[in-house]
Amino acid sequence: MILVIKNGTVITMDEKRKEKYENLDIVIENDTIIKLEKDYQGKFDKVIDATDKIVMPGLINCHTHLGMSIFRATNDSLNLDDWLNKKIWPIENNMTDDDIYYTSLLSILEMIKTGTTCCADMYFGCLGTLKALKETNFRILFSRCLMDGDTKGEEHLEEFKKLYKNNQTDLIKWAVSLHAFYTCSKEYLKNGSDLSLELGLPLHIHFCENKSEVEGIKKDYGTLSNALESTGLLRNKLLLAHATFLSDDVLNAIKDKDVSLIHNPVSNLNLGCGIANISKYRDYANICLGTDGQGSGNNMNLFYHMSLVDLLQKGLYKDPTIMNSYEVLKMATLNGAKALGLDNEVGSIEIGKKADIIIVSLDNIESYPTVDIINNVVHNTSNINVDTTIINGNVLMEGHELKLDINEDEVKENITSIFKRLDV
Amino acid sequence: MILVIKNGTVITMDEKRKEKYENLDIVIENDTIIKLEKDYQGKFDKVIDATDKIVMPGLINCHTHLGMSIFRATNDSLNLDDWLNKKIWPIENNMTDDDIYYTSLLSILEMIKTGTTCCADMYFGCLGTLKALKETNFRILFSRCLMDGDTKGEEHLEEFKKLYKNNQTDLIKWAVSLHAFYTCSKEYLKNGSDLSLELGLPLHIHFCENKSEVEGIKKDYGTLSNALESTGLLRNKLLLAHATFLSDDVLNAIKDKDVSLIHNPVSNLNLGCGIANISKYRDYANICLGTDGQGSGNNMNLFYHMSLVDLLQKGLYKDPTIMNSYEVLKMATLNGAKALGLDNEVGSIEIGKKADIIIVSLDNIESYPTVDIINNVVHNTSNINVDTTIINGNVLMEGHELKLDINEDEVKENITSIFKRLDV
Repeated sequence: MILVIKNGTVITMDEKRKEKYENLDIVIENDTIIKLEKDYQGKFDKVIDATDKIVMPGLINCHTHLGMSIFRATNDSLNLDDWLNKKIWPIENNMTDDDIYYTSLLSILEMIKTGTTCCADMYFGCLGTLKALKETNFRILFSRCLMDGDTKGEEHLEEFKKLYKNNQTDLIKWAVSLHAFYTCSKEYLKNGSDLSLELGLPLHIHFCENKSEVEGIKKDYGTLSNALESTGLLRNKLLLAHATFLSDDVLNAIKDKDVSLIHNPVSNLNLGCGIANISKYRDYANICLGTDGQGSGNNMNLFYHMSLVDLLQKGLYKDPTIMNSYEVLKMATLNGAKALGLDNEVGSIEIGKKADIIIVSLDNIESYPTVDIINNVVHNTSNINVDTTIINGNVLMEGHELKLDINEDEVKENITSIFKRLDV
Repeated sequence: MILVIKNGTVITMDEKRKEKYENLDIVIENDTIIKLEKDYQGKFDKVIDATDKIVMPGLINCHTHLGMSIFRATNDSLNLDDWLNKKIWPIENNMTDDDIYYTSLLSILEMIKTGTTCCADMYFGCLGTLKALKETNFRILFSRCLMDGDTKGEEHLEEFKKLYKNNQTDLIKWAVSLHAFYTCSKEYLKNGSDLSLELGLPLHIHFCENKSEVEGIKKDYGTLSNALESTGLLRNKLLLAHATFLSDDVLNAIKDKDVSLIHNPVSNLNLGCGIANISKYRDYANICLGTDGQGSGNNMNLFYHMSLVDLLQKGLYKDPTIMNSYEVLKMATLNGAKALGLDNEVGSIEIGKKADIIIVSLDNIESYPTVDIINNVVHNTSNINVDTTIINGNVLMEGHELKLDINEDEVKENITSIFKRLDV
């Protein structure tokens, strides 16, 4: 099967190309990009005309909880403890794998419609999420969220091992996800770190999301760097989710390690955590982006979240030159792929990489004119602009229309009955 | 002409109604809301069915420069001085009234498509903007931006007086707009203030947008409060645009006056100004919202800007309870109307007010489910959700389709030739 995307303005995000964008035809054979050339005249089975449109790598959302979509718009002006204790946790206790299938499916459809082609997820009810992932052919770094604060630590580990053994595909790769320092004992963190090394998987963990978490870790471990070192985590390919407040000792400790910081700007504001100083942290680690769940992140439209990244740094530093749009787009694409260990496969449009590609039109009045394409893509793209989404060579949406055997109305009806039954 | 909006979930923003929203039919006779009742059975000429949709007051954008749309996406990581001196000002010098007609028309269409029904504008090339306003039946508090830093202060005043005399309609009301303290002499500010009092018009001025402006004002006037007092501005119905950094002396000085602060969150971040402390300022003045021009504000979709307002305060105070969505929506509707002196006419859905109403659908996957309507409207509404826009009883967009005798493609073609000719 040869798919050709013709006549588009291509943002490759390939660092070896000097040009930020150029007119290129993209030739895809099955799942792989095999040619990038002007005016391709070879054979094809299907052509997508991208004239006057922008063709770019699909976005990569490095921190999600796909099953949490029913918590969208439930935290208005709530204290974090109240929200978790009175709302989230009691309801989560009553969610079945079948509920999680539908809530995950909603999140995946949301990502496909807004140009995200890969995510890194940690949650529970994994059989439900796996069913939704397989039905949609979505790419993921998946995991079962592990914690022993509730004494079920061993059960979580066993569940993870079984899931991992039975669900490895081209599109579903795995990480070991430890929930956080405040929900995992030191022993459990060490075991998780050992397991991640043993299996050769990345390790994903919430870290230093807010000030009180930082204080808690310091109380237990002395310093933030000691927390990572004494639990063995720095030996791992490590994904630190949030990393809102990092002290110099931990920045120096992670500098030459394989560490990525997952910046979640909307969630961090919404929960009153603050603004991560990524203009400083970028000198110490790979910075990528996440939305968090819809409860704190509002939505999974990574374009909405991306637009805030440089804005917040410009405001924080009172310096409009501190960060540009290209750097933000790199966080949402190539840096995301690096964080997930998938940069040989995705994150940029290059010959030999998998075809995870989106087509965006900025031709609407609200995004017009486009003087600087990268700036406009980062700051003026919303769900109305995302035209086509391709994952692993499969066209999942074309011309705004989903190409999946899924009835959206049925998904919404099921979500409605779930949030009514659970009294969200 | 009787227009009925039936079966919608209505967010009235009427402070006398306890309910935030309810199912109501809205009956509009010509330009005015005459009835709000359940299951209206009376006569009508046209019905809009709003079943499963949200009906709410149109948004009010209190600080715009409609003619600046060609500067969208032109300031990526530029120092403010460089952007103004090398980009904006040289190009503005070559813009004709005809250019400003098209750039303003683009901005107005952008607002109609994203649910804004009224704005307060200050710019030049006013004949062009007025032509666009009249062709679209858009509601505005209009002005000619006045400054004497360039020695043309008297010309600006004469132009304003002539424009004001000849262009008063139901939809076009006027303010006196002084550009700023750093572009107007003390004498000129006094004259503008006197003129505004004499004509009974609100006075709109940029004030304390960034730290260096604050320092400049303190150097010239001693204190911020003295700047407002010694120029007579506190006698006026006053709109202070940006007001990013206000000291206690000026907060106390404005407390019992008719002063509104126009918060421009995106522009303030983009230009490296910072975050206005509106959680404090709200105790001293009416807070409303503005986008600024597209160059600094990215776009005129006030929903995009609204979503940031409470997020920024939550992050700034590290307190998720500091501000809720209802307060933000009030800033974008009723508070905006108060700021502009139009709260007897618009800003809420009430019997006797003009019909400036939008219909929003949150039925798409990316906004689903809607547990809390107000929270979801403020944080998950984008251009894809705005279905219908009504100003003064005129349906300007219905079912996402513009009902104006304007060819969008022609507008875009003209904008393209303008930004190419001016080498934006």
